[in-house]
Amino acid sequence: MGSVWGNALKVSIFGESHGDGIGVVLDGYPAGIPFDEDFVRAEMARRAPGKNKQSTARREADLPRVLSGIYNGHSAGTPICAVIENTDTRSGDYKDFTQQPRPGHADYTGAVRYGGWNDPRGGGHFSGRLTAPLVFAGAMCKLFLKTKGITIGAHIQSVAQIQDMPFDDVELSAETLEILRRKPYPIQNPRAEDAMLAAIEEARLDGDSVGGVIECAAIGLPAGLGSPLLDTVEGRIASLLFSVPAVKGVEFGAGFAFAELRGSHANDPYYRDASGAVRTETNHNGGVLGGITSGMPLLFRVAVKPTPSISRRQETLNLQTGMVEPFTVKGRHDPCIVTRAAPVIEAACAAALADLYLEGYGYARTE
Amino acid sequence: MGSVWGNALKVSIFGESHGDGIGVVLDGYPAGIPFDEDFVRAEMARRAPGKNKQSTARREADLPRVLSGIYNGHSAGTPICAVIENTDTRSGDYKDFTQQPRPGHADYTGAVRYGGWNDPRGGGHFSGRLTAPLVFAGAMCKLFLKTKGITIGAHIQSVAQIQDMPFDDVELSAETLEILRRKPYPIQNPRAEDAMLAAIEEARLDGDSVGGVIECAAIGLPAGLGSPLLDTVEGRIASLLFSVPAVKGVEFGAGFAFAELRGSHANDPYYRDASGAVRTETNHNGGVLGGITSGMPLLFRVAVKPTPSISRRQETLNLQTGMVEPFTVKGRHDPCIVTRAAPVIEAACAAALADLYLEGYGYARTE
Amino acid sequence: MGSVWGNALKVSIFGESHGDGIGVVLDGYPAGIPFDEDFVRAEMARRAPGKNKQSTARREADLPRVLSGIYNGHSAGTPICAVIENTDTRSGDYKDFTQQPRPGHADYTGAVRYGGWNDPRGGGHFSGRLTAPLVFAGAMCKLFLKTKGITIGAHIQSVAQIQDMPFDDVELSAETLEILRRKPYPIQNPRAEDAMLAAIEEARLDGDSVGGVIECAAIGLPAGLGSPLLDTVEGRIASLLFSVPAVKGVEFGAGFAFAELRGSHANDPYYRDASGAVRTETNHNGGVLGGITSGMPLLFRVAVKPTPSISRRQETLNLQTGMVEPFTVKGRHDPCIVTRAAPVIEAACAAALADLYLEGYGYARTE
Amino acid sequence: MGSVWGNALKVSIFGESHGDGIGVVLDGYPAGIPFDEDFVRAEMARRAPGKNKQSTARREADLPRVLSGIYNGHSAGTPICAVIENTDTRSGDYKDFTQQPRPGHADYTGAVRYGGWNDPRGGGHFSGRLTAPLVFAGAMCKLFLKTKGITIGAHIQSVAQIQDMPFDDVELSAETLEILRRKPYPIQNPRAEDAMLAAIEEARLDGDSVGGVIECAAIGLPAGLGSPLLDTVEGRIASLLFSVPAVKGVEFGAGFAFAELRGSHANDPYYRDASGAVRTETNHNGGVLGGITSGMPLLFRVAVKPTPSISRRQETLNLQTGMVEPFTVKGRHDPCIVTRAAPVIEAACAAALADLYLEGYGYARTE
Repeated sequence: MGSVWGNALKVSIFGESHGDGIGVVLDGYPAGIPFDEDFVRAEMARRAPGKNKQSTARREADLPRVLSGIYNGHSAGTPICAVIENTDTRSGDYKDFTQQPRPGHADYTGAVRYGGWNDPRGGGHFSGRLTAPLVFAGAMCKLFLKTKGITIGAHIQSVAQIQDMPFDDVELSAETLEILRRKPYPIQNPRAEDAMLAAIEEARLDGDSVGGVIECAAIGLPAGLGSPLLDTVEGRIASLLFSVPAVKGVEFGAGFAFAELRGSHANDPYYRDASGAVRTETNHNGGVLGGITSGMPLLFRVAVKPTPSISRRQETLNLQTGMVEPFTVKGRHDPCIVTRAAPVIEAACAAALADLYLEGYGYARTE
Repeated sequence: MGSVWGNALKVSIFGESHGDGIGVVLDGYPAGIPFDEDFVRAEMARRAPGKNKQSTARREADLPRVLSGIYNGHSAGTPICAVIENTDTRSGDYKDFTQQPRPGHADYTGAVRYGGWNDPRGGGHFSGRLTAPLVFAGAMCKLFLKTKGITIGAHIQSVAQIQDMPFDDVELSAETLEILRRKPYPIQNPRAEDAMLAAIEEARLDGDSVGGVIECAAIGLPAGLGSPLLDTVEGRIASLLFSVPAVKGVEFGAGFAFAELRGSHANDPYYRDASGAVRTETNHNGGVLGGITSGMPLLFRVAVKPTPSISRRQETLNLQTGMVEPFTVKGRHDPCIVTRAAPVIEAACAAALADLYLEGYGYARTE
Repeated sequence: MGSVWGNALKVSIFGESHGDGIGVVLDGYPAGIPFDEDFVRAEMARRAPGKNKQSTARREADLPRVLSGIYNGHSAGTPICAVIENTDTRSGDYKDFTQQPRPGHADYTGAVRYGGWNDPRGGGHFSGRLTAPLVFAGAMCKLFLKTKGITIGAHIQSVAQIQDMPFDDVELSAETLEILRRKPYPIQNPRAEDAMLAAIEEARLDGDSVGGVIECAAIGLPAGLGSPLLDTVEGRIASLLFSVPAVKGVEFGAGFAFAELRGSHANDPYYRDASGAVRTETNHNGGVLGGITSGMPLLFRVAVKPTPSISRRQETLNLQTGMVEPFTVKGRHDPCIVTRAAPVIEAACAAALADLYLEGYGYARTE
Repeated sequence: MGSVWGNALKVSIFGESHGDGIGVVLDGYPAGIPFDEDFVRAEMARRAPGKNKQSTARREADLPRVLSGIYNGHSAGTPICAVIENTDTRSGDYKDFTQQPRPGHADYTGAVRYGGWNDPRGGGHFSGRLTAPLVFAGAMCKLFLKTKGITIGAHIQSVAQIQDMPFDDVELSAETLEILRRKPYPIQNPRAEDAMLAAIEEARLDGDSVGGVIECAAIGLPAGLGSPLLDTVEGRIASLLFSVPAVKGVEFGAGFAFAELRGSHANDPYYRDASGAVRTETNHNGGVLGGITSGMPLLFRVAVKPTPSISRRQETLNLQTGMVEPFTVKGRHDPCIVTRAAPVIEAACAAALADLYLEGYGYARTE
């Protein structure tokens, strides 16, 4: 009930933005997976703020300190705990949130949930900073899934109504995902990238923020993972995606566009490819049918709301006076978190798929 | 791993479309809730097929037989099992599915998942018929939530691109939801209803099907339910919504439209109403902030794909010949399941909220 | 929270002694396991009452009706629901339990737990009759485990201080377990059997009851199942064993006798046998070390308390008068449930091991 | 699947004996509970080794570093992570365990479970040292339970066949438990204490070790917590007790002695006390009936096996040579861990009861 997720692989995230440290425990991670520190560091860097004027100025340490579960350069099979110390905290910026809860943030709901005892500094446990341990967990899961031939990647599908080219849902390749992973902004169409950055800059100058959509895919999944009814692949992944702050929508395959299709167009006809594998000619179902993977690329999109922290003046309730009063969130803020969200969404996907995979194939070593 | 869902309240659904029976076990349902048989029967009837030419001809018994957990007209606190006998099954219609799996159905993924051992008749455990026990569970959960002042309702937001008037996300009343519940088609705008029915009939005459969107809401929820990070209200509800066959997208509040908003517009400013309650002027966040209920109406929409069973000829793989061959799904089929989906979506919402409520307030009787 | 147990394999039991029916849902049971009806019926018969004067007179139907999850004589992989109709119920015998809760029974604690709403007739959901669906679940799990070379069996270790010969914890064979399974009373030493039956008859004539100990074992388990710390094999099995009414103690291997051993004697030294397998010369640890199976016979004992229903007059509180008053439990009662407990204990063991096995090896078919 | 336990309150333990650090995450711990550092430090000290010649020489830091979940001296409601750095590690002592697995330890089963990838130094994740974070978790849970009037305590019931006076299972008071908590050895009878210490010293001089029994109780529990069938109070507590290394038996109330009682003696008759509360005259059922608390003292005993690490020469398999060869465990070892086990057993009990309590009463603040 709270900050633990998963069945065969359990992810437990802890920490507050301005506390002593944040981190994650991964329980059930399989033994013998090579620990590629460089890869993990690179994944953390993809999410890290402070790279440019479009993200917050806060600096974060490079790599979480791994306290357990890694031995001789491989996973030991026992729980992996990674801790990121909090260093560059400026709590003074945040002290008024309990009195005048920020619109669009969890200041008010968190205070009700925890009876006012939770740490409000920097958003506390609700801070976007808590996605850093999730990215660590995701990087670890990607390393495991890679040993099974599974690759996960994402791109920015849209920012402020500017659209990137969507993924090819049938022919998407691991190479395409790998190229995107190395880009500062994971966008396929360079012109879209320019337009998006311009729109973000415009919002920043207005003291405002913009939202967007991330499209994410997994290639190389075996068919037959997941379960119908009450434990579907979509439900499992979505339950973790909706844990990412600012995510307010999730759709698989054609998603909401299904509502506008006819069945004769929406159905994905089967064929057998040259290698003998069963595939579908189209992939409107995004690689999942009846809650179970089909072996086609798994594909989904998530809606990310605009950063609620904006520098413009807002009007909202002062709990002490009971009156609506002007309000300004001090400090520097990301005018668009979508640009940093891709590795977070990928991480949620990777954790969910690793869990599903381990349920399907078990932990016992039978080779 | 499969067909059990929930924490404090567990829902376990079993059965195959053409087996001996289908049903549900509700574990953790609180004691002492009046069992309103008429209400449960009415909810079942809302989902039942066979009411008109736009739904399948199969007749279903009125009320599941309740084997346990109800005593003296009230819930006993012990597990409630309800069974619906399967009677009107015509298995002959379905025998070719294993050889030529239907596009858009789970025939292929199910066969991989279960090594070919699962019951393919009528879709087996994947059949839309399995939503009947979910509706029973939802009806029971609504009866419980009603004792806490919580009402759940839904309407058809769109079918085949024809839009109904959306819910008023701030002022939505229990009365509005109650009126919709009693309608044969839960649509707010009568002209939209006419247009939708015409579009469905058009698809039917074409041997085709159409999809749509259901909008669902819950009124009267206390603030403070749910948890940030890894166990959010959105994630919990979505994990169950994606268990409903044909659901491929879920969005809360503004959802994907958030991607096109600026923060200054998207943020919901707080105020204190005449009764002293903290509310927001807008409700783009759909009643959930930081994964926790805000006390505003909970609001979400789900995308329902067009029925994959269509009477038109399709072309798809014959597993025996290895060739793509013509294929026709025999029997009568719903050209649009959206018209019957509202009570199913409400049921998933009710079960998720009952679970969240019971985690928040516990089972112990402290009055 | 209540009547659902398990991770990869979930067991959900429902029903009240005098309600319409009792039953079980098995979720996650693997596909393709032959359904041996005769075996299941025989297991049910081992637990069934009414065989002789030493057990209750109530007759039970032979085999539960299987509503789902079995197709073409094999498990389908989807949830298996089995229902036993309640027929021979004589509720009149029980109507005073709410006013004068029976000592040693759950009448009082159940009434507090469920606010007085639970069905008290025949003990309701607390009735020993609810072990019948558990035995069904256990029989199914034994059929699965048999395909992996795993055999489970038990004997009556003691009744009323009369001891049977304990299992050979190193050389125990599947044959020994099979022979015990076919006996009316699973006791190794015929003289102990005679003495036990005499002691039970003596108690019966006194209007009293006696307790005892069941010893249970599993042969053929692979080494390496389970986890250290917080999810051990012992903890998993014990959590289910303590669900069996009347079980009040569980010990693995030497168990409480460990408290009287020295380490030099208690440690089990390893050796390699002729086949190359690693084994231990002694097996004080009962086949589990560090919470993980060692490949040696798994061995545990459970303490079963004497039947609380006795025909002798007792004195206990009348809740209405507030006074301690004489009290007699009417009807016929087992003077010793230990004689029927072996298949129940085996069933709990089988379900726990099936769950552990499926977590270790997964559900995906890789052959 | 592994090192996470609990429902409403989740305990997740990580770390290896000679890794960078060990620790625990508590998820679901209620908000607003005063954090009494002195109490937590005192509990840790009760378990800590190195106090005298009868325990290992390894020194441990006083208090775990709390990284999250505590704010302004109270619990914040968000996950609490506590880390104990590993400092005084002498790994050289342990390097031969993979080649010649120690009898009675998890060296062999752990290597099979994790394919040889786990950290063997000092027992790795299997080390008794991992009970330190459990004691931290237990201390936190005791602080919570104290606010509900619930007290937990234990004493050493026996060591090497020398018995302490058992708890009075009806009249046990919080004061008695508090006095035991402050003793260096929690034993009620001073003469038993002298005899136990002498027996331990004798074993130590023989290069051997001894086992024993801990008796533990909880006072002040409300009636009505827990569930019948598949989720009993006994099953829940036992599942965590069996996670404590060296625990091989658990019995509630009369436990295995029930096997030798008659029902007329074993049944606990009810009466109403002066305050109007329903109580039982005897408490053979140890405060649990039908899996649900009765309001009487909760009482159980656990069997602790003798420390497998002994300094005497043993003979066991050398995996490299395939031969049974002499073997000596170097370093200093506790000849009896029972003397340090009481706070660990209490901790497991406290965590289980906090979980049960929170399920019963929920997290939402209704005052």
